[in-house]
Amino acid sequence: MKNETPFIDKNEFLFIGGPCAVESSEQMKAILSLPFGPSVIRGGIYKMRTNKNSFQGLGIVGIELIKEIKKSHKLSFVTEITDPRQIDGLLPIVSCFQVGARNMYNYELLKELGNYQVPVILKRGFSATISEWLGASEYLQALGQENIILCERGVRSFDNKLRNLLDLGSVIYLKKNTAFKVIVDPSHAMGDRRYVSDAAVAALAAGADGIMVEVHPDPDNALSDGQQSIGPEIATELVQKIKELAPHFNKVLRV
Amino acid sequence: MKNETPFIDKNEFLFIGGPCAVESSEQMKAILSLPFGPSVIRGGIYKMRTNKNSFQGLGIVGIELIKEIKKSHKLSFVTEITDPRQIDGLLPIVSCFQVGARNMYNYELLKELGNYQVPVILKRGFSATISEWLGASEYLQALGQENIILCERGVRSFDNKLRNLLDLGSVIYLKKNTAFKVIVDPSHAMGDRRYVSDAAVAALAAGADGIMVEVHPDPDNALSDGQQSIGPEIATELVQKIKELAPHFNKVLRV
Amino acid sequence: MKNETPFIDKNEFLFIGGPCAVESSEQMKAILSLPFGPSVIRGGIYKMRTNKNSFQGLGIVGIELIKEIKKSHKLSFVTEITDPRQIDGLLPIVSCFQVGARNMYNYELLKELGNYQVPVILKRGFSATISEWLGASEYLQALGQENIILCERGVRSFDNKLRNLLDLGSVIYLKKNTAFKVIVDPSHAMGDRRYVSDAAVAALAAGADGIMVEVHPDPDNALSDGQQSIGPEIATELVQKIKELAPHFNKVLRV
Amino acid sequence: MKNETPFIDKNEFLFIGGPCAVESSEQMKAILSLPFGPSVIRGGIYKMRTNKNSFQGLGIVGIELIKEIKKSHKLSFVTEITDPRQIDGLLPIVSCFQVGARNMYNYELLKELGNYQVPVILKRGFSATISEWLGASEYLQALGQENIILCERGVRSFDNKLRNLLDLGSVIYLKKNTAFKVIVDPSHAMGDRRYVSDAAVAALAAGADGIMVEVHPDPDNALSDGQQSIGPEIATELVQKIKELAPHFNKVLRV
Repeated sequence: MKNETPFIDKNEFLFIGGPCAVESSEQMKAILSLPFGPSVIRGGIYKMRTNKNSFQGLGIVGIELIKEIKKSHKLSFVTEITDPRQIDGLLPIVSCFQVGARNMYNYELLKELGNYQVPVILKRGFSATISEWLGASEYLQALGQENIILCERGVRSFDNKLRNLLDLGSVIYLKKNTAFKVIVDPSHAMGDRRYVSDAAVAALAAGADGIMVEVHPDPDNALSDGQQSIGPEIATELVQKIKELAPHFNKVLRV
Repeated sequence: MKNETPFIDKNEFLFIGGPCAVESSEQMKAILSLPFGPSVIRGGIYKMRTNKNSFQGLGIVGIELIKEIKKSHKLSFVTEITDPRQIDGLLPIVSCFQVGARNMYNYELLKELGNYQVPVILKRGFSATISEWLGASEYLQALGQENIILCERGVRSFDNKLRNLLDLGSVIYLKKNTAFKVIVDPSHAMGDRRYVSDAAVAALAAGADGIMVEVHPDPDNALSDGQQSIGPEIATELVQKIKELAPHFNKVLRV
Repeated sequence: MKNETPFIDKNEFLFIGGPCAVESSEQMKAILSLPFGPSVIRGGIYKMRTNKNSFQGLGIVGIELIKEIKKSHKLSFVTEITDPRQIDGLLPIVSCFQVGARNMYNYELLKELGNYQVPVILKRGFSATISEWLGASEYLQALGQENIILCERGVRSFDNKLRNLLDLGSVIYLKKNTAFKVIVDPSHAMGDRRYVSDAAVAALAAGADGIMVEVHPDPDNALSDGQQSIGPEIATELVQKIKELAPHFNKVLRV
Repeated sequence: MKNETPFIDKNEFLFIGGPCAVESSEQMKAILSLPFGPSVIRGGIYKMRTNKNSFQGLGIVGIELIKEIKKSHKLSFVTEITDPRQIDGLLPIVSCFQVGARNMYNYELLKELGNYQVPVILKRGFSATISEWLGASEYLQALGQENIILCERGVRSFDNKLRNLLDLGSVIYLKKNTAFKVIVDPSHAMGDRRYVSDAAVAALAAGADGIMVEVHPDPDNALSDGQQSIGPEIATELVQKIKELAPHFNKVLRV
C-alpha cells in the first residue's frame, strides 16, 4: 500500500524545527508559539545515546504528552523510531517517522516501516556511502519515493572543529540522479548553533528540499544538544533569509 | 542474571569457523567433519545485505536445519541476530549470539540481549571509534564482561585493495585497558582468502583471544562471501600455525 | 615584506577559471576570449600526478607560452608551484601562486614562498584537518592574511559517487573564525562537470570569497581532468547565476 | 644508476631504532651504547612540525654532530629529508634517506632522490591509499626495489584512543603482491610507548621486514615524541621477543 500524498510538495522547501528531545508540555507549546510558526515539528521521544547513562527520552510519557497537545494544537509531528516494537505506540502521533543515522543499516526496522503508509525520513549513516544509503532506502520502497525523504546530516571526519562534515555534494548528486526528496540537518552536521544558519542556506543553494533544524525555546537549558540548537531569534532570521532566497532556486518556503 | 561460565577460557585462543551463511545440511556436516574439527561453528541464518535483493539467509528453515544437526552432532553454534524478535527462535540453537557491524549502534537490540544469559560477540561498527564500541558494550553489561566478546573486523578505509582496514591497534588497546575478550575476524577485514591466514596470525601476535574465520567446504561455490572464505586446506595449515605460535603468547588453541 | 594589495577585495567574489593544464597558446587564447571574460586565469604548468607516466605539464615551455600571451593580453595568472626551485622561473608570469593539496604539508616550500610578495592560494590537503591547514598557513605568514587565500577542494571520503567530499562546513568555520579569504574549487570536489555549478553556488551561499573552476574551451578534448571541466556554455550560465545571487550575500562578482 | 647492495637482506628482520630528533652528542652516544646494540640508528635533523613554533630539528648543527660521532663510532644512520636542497648536506652522513608521511606526495623530492644511490625509506602518507603509495615509489624507481623500503606508519582514523590506525593489512598485501621491502613504524602508529612492543611483534607476524622504532635513552625528557618513545628496558625486551619469534617467520633479527 502506497501513500499518495507526498510529505513535501513539488517546489516546496520544508522547515522542520523542534527540540532534540521532547521534554515537557511547556517546551513543546513554546515551540509551537514561536513567531515563525513551524508547521512541522520534530522532537525525540526515544533517544539513541552512545552513553547508556545519558538521557534516553521520555518514551511512553512523551507519547501521551504529544497526544494531549494535539487535542488543542495543529501539529505535524516527526519523531525518531529505534525499534519495530515502537511502531504501534507512535502511529497515532506521527506524521512522519525518522530513522536516525545509527539505524540506517537496521534493515529489519526499515522492512517493517515499509509496511505502513507513514512517510519516513531516512538519515544517512555516520560514514555511509551514497550507495549504501540508497540501498537502505530500497528496504522502505513500498512507501514510494515521494514519501521517503533522505536526510543528509553530515558524515564523520578527521576534523575536530565541527561535529560532522556536512556533505552537500551528496545532496547535489541525489537531486540530479534520483527522484527522492532530500533534506539537510545542519544542526547535527555543524554541532554549533553559530554555524547552523549558513549551513541551512547553503543546503538550499545545493538543491535541498528542506531542512530539519534543532530549535529550542531556551537552548542553553536544553536537556540534550543545546549547543547546536538555535533559539527563537536565530530561527526567525533564518526563516527570513530562506524566504528571500528560495525563489532563486524555484522553491517556496513552507514553515 | 549473569552467566558464570566464560565463553572463552583464560589463556585460550578460540578458532570459530564456518560459512558466511548456513546453506544446507550437507554444507554444515561437511564443515563439522573437517580435519581440524572446529568446536565452535559460525553460520548466518539472518543475513544483513546492503542490497535487498541479495541472499538474505534461510531464516526459520535454517533454525530447523541446525536443530536437526544438533540431534546427531556436538555443535557449539554462533549466529548473527538482527532483530529482538528473533531471540526466542534462536535461543534453542545458539551457544553465542553475534551482533554484526551494522547493528553495533542498535541499542534496542543490545538492551534486549542483555536480559539473557547467552554470550554475545559484539562486532565493531564500520567506522566506530573504540569509545563507541565500548559504549555499545555497556548496553549488554548484564551479561558480564566474560561473556561479552568484542570482535574487531576491520574498519572502513579509503583504500580499495582490501575490503576493510584491519585494526590490530584496537586489539592491543582493548587488551591493555579492559577486561574484555577480544577476537578478530580476518575474513571480513581482508576480504580475500589469500590474506586471511597472515591476518589471523598477526591477530594472535597482537594479543587477540581468538579468531572468527569464514571457512567453507567449497569456497568457490559459496552462496555468499566465497572470495574471502578459506577452504579445508588453508584452514588446516592455519590451525597448525596457530598451534605452533600460541604458546609464545601464553595461549593454547581451542579449535 | 608584506604585500599591501589584497588579491581579493572586500565584498568581492572572485571567479578564477581556466584549464587544468596549460596546453597551447590557442587553448589559452580561447579561454581569454570566452564571453564571461575571466580576469583571473588558472592553468597548470607543473602538474602533480599520482602516476608518473601521466602528463606532467609543459614546464618551461609553458612559462614561455604565458610570457608571449601576456605581451598581447591582459592576464592575471595563477599556477601551481611544486618545488622551491620553480619560484624564479614562475615569478615573471604569476599574479598568485597556488600550492596544491599534495603540498599543503610541504613546509619547506611554504617557508620559501613566505619570502616573496606574491599572494598564495593554499589548497587543503586530501584529508587535512582545519587545524593542520591553518598550521600550514602560518608557514606563509609573512605574506599577510589578505594575501593568503585558503582553497577548499573537498576531502577524501568513503564514497565513490563523487571525486571528493566538498566540505562547505570548513568554509563556514573559517569565515566565522579567521580573517582569511576562502575560495572553493568545485571542480576537484565534485569531479564531474554536471555538478560543478550547483557546488559553486552553494559555496557562495556558505560564505566563500570566490571559486576556482576548471574551464576548458573544449572539455572533451582536454589533456587532463576533462570530465570535471566545464565548457563555455555552463561557465556563462554559472556567471549569470552568481551575478544574480551574490548581492544577497553582500558580495559582488569580479569575473 | 642503481645500488646493488640491498639495505635489508633476504630473510633479515631489521630493527631501526633511535630518537625522534637528534638532540645532542651525549644523547646519540647513549643510544649507541644501549645493550641491544642497534646497528641502524634513526634520528631527525630536519623535523616536519604541524605547528611552526615547535622544535624544527638541529639542521646543519645536527649534521656536524653526526659527522663527529661517525669518526669514533660505527654508525648506519637514517634521517628524514624534507627538501631537495638538503641532499648534498646529508649525503656524507646517511646510509638511507627517509621520506616522511607529509612528503609522500612531494614528487619533486622523490624524483631528485631517484638520482642518487642511497636507499630510501618511503613512509605512507597520512591517508594515502596503497595505490598512491606505490605510485609515489615509482618516482624513486631508479633506486631499484631492493633499495626502496616502504614504511607503514598507520593511517589517520576517527578514533582518538590511538595516534593512528596501524594498518598491517597493507603489509600483508604488499608482501604478497610486490617485491618491496616493507617495514613498520609502531611508534607513530600507536603514539604511546605502552603499545609499541605488541605492535612491533604483530608487524613481524604480518610479514614485515623490519621495524623503525623511536628509542630514547630517557624518553620522559625527549625534546619531541617522548610519549611514544621506548626506553632501554622496553627496547631490550622487545629485541628478545623478536629474536625468539623471528625464526617462526623465516626471519633472522639484525639489530
